[in-house]
Amino acid sequence: MDNFSSRLLQSAVNEFATLPGIGKKTALRLVLHLLKQEESRVYSFSESLLRLKRESKICKVCHNLSDREICEICDNPHRDNGVICVVEDIRDVMAIENTNQFKGKYHILGGKISPMEGIGPSDLNIESLLERLREESHSEVILALSSTTEGDTTNFYLYKKLQGISVNISTIARGVSFGDELEYADEVTLGRSILNRVPYKLGNG
Amino acid sequence: MDNFSSRLLQSAVNEFATLPGIGKKTALRLVLHLLKQEESRVYSFSESLLRLKRESKICKVCHNLSDREICEICDNPHRDNGVICVVEDIRDVMAIENTNQFKGKYHILGGKISPMEGIGPSDLNIESLLERLREESHSEVILALSSTTEGDTTNFYLYKKLQGISVNISTIARGVSFGDELEYADEVTLGRSILNRVPYKLGNG
Repeated sequence: MDNFSSRLLQSAVNEFATLPGIGKKTALRLVLHLLKQEESRVYSFSESLLRLKRESKICKVCHNLSDREICEICDNPHRDNGVICVVEDIRDVMAIENTNQFKGKYHILGGKISPMEGIGPSDLNIESLLERLREESHSEVILALSSTTEGDTTNFYLYKKLQGISVNISTIARGVSFGDELEYADEVTLGRSILNRVPYKLGNG
Repeated sequence: MDNFSSRLLQSAVNEFATLPGIGKKTALRLVLHLLKQEESRVYSFSESLLRLKRESKICKVCHNLSDREICEICDNPHRDNGVICVVEDIRDVMAIENTNQFKGKYHILGGKISPMEGIGPSDLNIESLLERLREESHSEVILALSSTTEGDTTNFYLYKKLQGISVNISTIARGVSFGDELEYADEVTLGRSILNRVPYKLGNG
């Protein structure tokens, strides 16, 4: 994969190969695909990345990626200001928004506490969460972090930090996924789903 | 996947998702990775694509992608001018170059004859191959197309076209791949490898 007939091609392939999960062969395939397009298409591809980097902003309230100082969700008067859902990154916001089940606000931590990766509480947007909660009264904080050791550690740290503040703390339900067979669920998930069983309601499974 | 908090993000993700084999989720992951980089890194990423599209050329002799009018391989006086290896696209040139087994020149067809995809002989760089062979005498043309119905059709078409020209025509050997177990080789491959058996030589397997 080192016999490039064109330095320009080599350079573009090398750039693509820096992306996560993209090897040299895939990078070459993608670059050759782009090369076959009209110049205007390649221009709009390049430009969309540059504009995103140069013009996008981080919401001052919730740290979501936005085109403005305050993101559309924080700025939306129809959303419940009293509930904050704490998530790891903006992909989680999009995943929750897609469910149409949550009409409150968000707070993006920017990661999880992970001693292995050298990420401590001060690297995350925790102080600004506490400030939000101190400045304005909220009824509930939902901790919606991933169900891993790091997620649990972060949950626990936030729980401790929130003790001085008058707000209900909840966490998203863990259990057997919709459509999953019980026999294939792992023990921890199945165990938790029995411990945290809920009253049966028609239409709720 | 449609709840983008930023139009800039949405636009960049949509651009990435036009690439072959890249879905919306992967596109988002790649774009967010780029967004985390320094602006200069994003700039060089974008610029490498634009420069490739604007400045790269197609070699006038062999149709290889090149930074110059005549590619480095065609321009190399140390390579054998008498042998032309006919391939489908520039990835095949790179693959053959990586073997270090071929020191002749190339001719890139730009595809295979494929009635299913509406690609006929006139869509390929066949006329320029015939011109090359008519203008200057060559000892051998190696047909190195992929071993598919379309590849075989193209081989046959080229073979017919080359009948008026005094040149030896060969095709790359087909057979059981190095390291493959016989029992797992498909029937056509194994059958051909028996029909086209070669005299045993020490060190040649």
